Amino acid sequence: MKVAIAGSGALGCGFGYLLQKNGNAVTLMDYWEDHIQSIRENGLTISINGEVDNAKMTIGKPEEIEDKFDVIFVFTKSMGLRSMMEAIKHTIKEDTQIVCLLNGLGHAQTLSEYVSQKNIIMGTTVWTAGIDAPGVTHFMGQGPVELQNADPSQEEAARKVEALLSEAGLNGVYSEDVHFTIWRKACVNGTMNALCALLDGTIKEVFESSQIDFLLNHIVSEFAQLARTEGVELDVEETIVYLKALALKVGSHYPSMHQDLANRRLTEIDFLNGTVARESEAKGLEAPYCQMITQLIHAKEDVLGISK
Amino acid sequence: MKVAIAGSGALGCGFGYLLQKNGNAVTLMDYWEDHIQSIRENGLTISINGEVDNAKMTIGKPEEIEDKFDVIFVFTKSMGLRSMMEAIKHTIKEDTQIVCLLNGLGHAQTLSEYVSQKNIIMGTTVWTAGIDAPGVTHFMGQGPVELQNADPSQEEAARKVEALLSEAGLNGVYSEDVHFTIWRKACVNGTMNALCALLDGTIKEVFESSQIDFLLNHIVSEFAQLARTEGVELDVEETIVYLKALALKVGSHYPSMHQDLANRRLTEIDFLNGTVARESEAKGLEAPYCQMITQLIHAKEDVLGISK
Repeated sequence: MKVAIAGSGALGCGFGYLLQKNGNAVTLMDYWEDHIQSIRENGLTISINGEVDNAKMTIGKPEEIEDKFDVIFVFTKSMGLRSMMEAIKHTIKEDTQIVCLLNGLGHAQTLSEYVSQKNIIMGTTVWTAGIDAPGVTHFMGQGPVELQNADPSQEEAARKVEALLSEAGLNGVYSEDVHFTIWRKACVNGTMNALCALLDGTIKEVFESSQIDFLLNHIVSEFAQLARTEGVELDVEETIVYLKALALKVGSHYPSMHQDLANRRLTEIDFLNGTVARESEAKGLEAPYCQMITQLIHAKEDVLGISK
Repeated sequence: MKVAIAGSGALGCGFGYLLQKNGNAVTLMDYWEDHIQSIRENGLTISINGEVDNAKMTIGKPEEIEDKFDVIFVFTKSMGLRSMMEAIKHTIKEDTQIVCLLNGLGHAQTLSEYVSQKNIIMGTTVWTAGIDAPGVTHFMGQGPVELQNADPSQEEAARKVEALLSEAGLNGVYSEDVHFTIWRKACVNGTMNALCALLDGTIKEVFESSQIDFLLNHIVSEFAQLARTEGVELDVEETIVYLKALALKVGSHYPSMHQDLANRRLTEIDFLNGTVARESEAKGLEAPYCQMITQLIHAKEDVLGISK
């Protein structure tokens, strides 16, 4: 199959490499000049669970690519999804399937502006990856990549991508719970990440605060209220138990949104609490905690001088 | 008159000194051992607008004082008011007047548990003061001290204290606006102070944020909604204009609540947004922004390891 990776950082390179190795025609797309140049000149050097290989791969900026693809994996940051879709829309055919494994909420909605609902596949993955240098990446784990159509009543596209991934060793798994998993992951990020970023504390410090029950209860309830309107049942009590167990396990570190601020990068708050605030308002629901935390995180970005 | 100062830090010493100098029998009450010992051994050394004097003054812990007083000025931190009232209740007679110039909301309510409504005088002051060493303080400005009975329909007690203060050079002024002034000051502290403390920014940085209008609008509206139930009209738009003008004037510094956190002291948030949240809930009103900001500031205190 003709496959494109829209956003070829560490995770995108891992997927692209394994898919190409299994006989698919893969095109990497990215905007990082040094990375593109290095892969063009020296091939992609990739370590898969410690085993290093070098592969010649096609890579270019979206605007330079003239092909159309059967499947496109989007691996951007949440805030980069829309502009990436704009940049690659000339590579999309009637039946191109778009696979989105990004964290955060609202992505299926964005994708539906570019492809028909039946061709949107949402998913989550536990593969991890990192960039060692331009053109040099590593990729770790064993998956799975859980997949489900954006419209859960359809499954054809997700089944097809499940097979594509599994044949390539990426451990694709069709799941009827992907939407729940995406919501719960967003809820983890919208509580743990957002609060640690705002309060400048470790997960342990924030979860040991006398205020944690109030804060979790309000935020999770707002996520659950909106999830329900999308057919996803997020039990508030169960989610809080899950969050607290997770906090105990991951304890003394700063989550990624805290690191974003520390490294002067914009956060993904608009795709977490921000989406809950915005979509709740559109549906006539109240979500003041998500609304305020979104405003406070943006204010914090402003105070730190992080520009859009 | 027999006057006591309950909480004899810098401001309390200034008031006590000037009232004694004008012929009143003044007793200072405090808990700071070094301060008490120094004043007992060496008298109070005080600089009033640069003019230094030394005066013998009576000082002791509330529990050591056996007198009852005509007027008691409370000069504690907000969170110390209740325990101070407990400690001094044996010094209160049927007609003792309590004068409260503290920042924050809800103090008249606390005082009403100890004295009858007609003997509670609320006020504000622009005198400033500082402690140089135990027993050595300075006191600056020219006042005024604006006063009004807790129950605005009565004025006898406030008129009496107005005279007491003015005769002592403390510039007492009876005002029909004290309750408005207290609310507006609380609103300044509940926006400017709370947001700068939470976001770790200067007033200028926070007020230049793209989010400031959303945040001010919500918080001020919640203050105004509760103020109205107490007969105080806080116009939301006018208050926001006032806050922005004040922010331009005081600009590049960190307000006091930010300094509290930086110096690992508990904040007075419970007597600002916390009171709005609690009282609104008691009255069936919504105040989610004040509620959340109170929880977040307390969580921040917890993360910083500041204990109650």
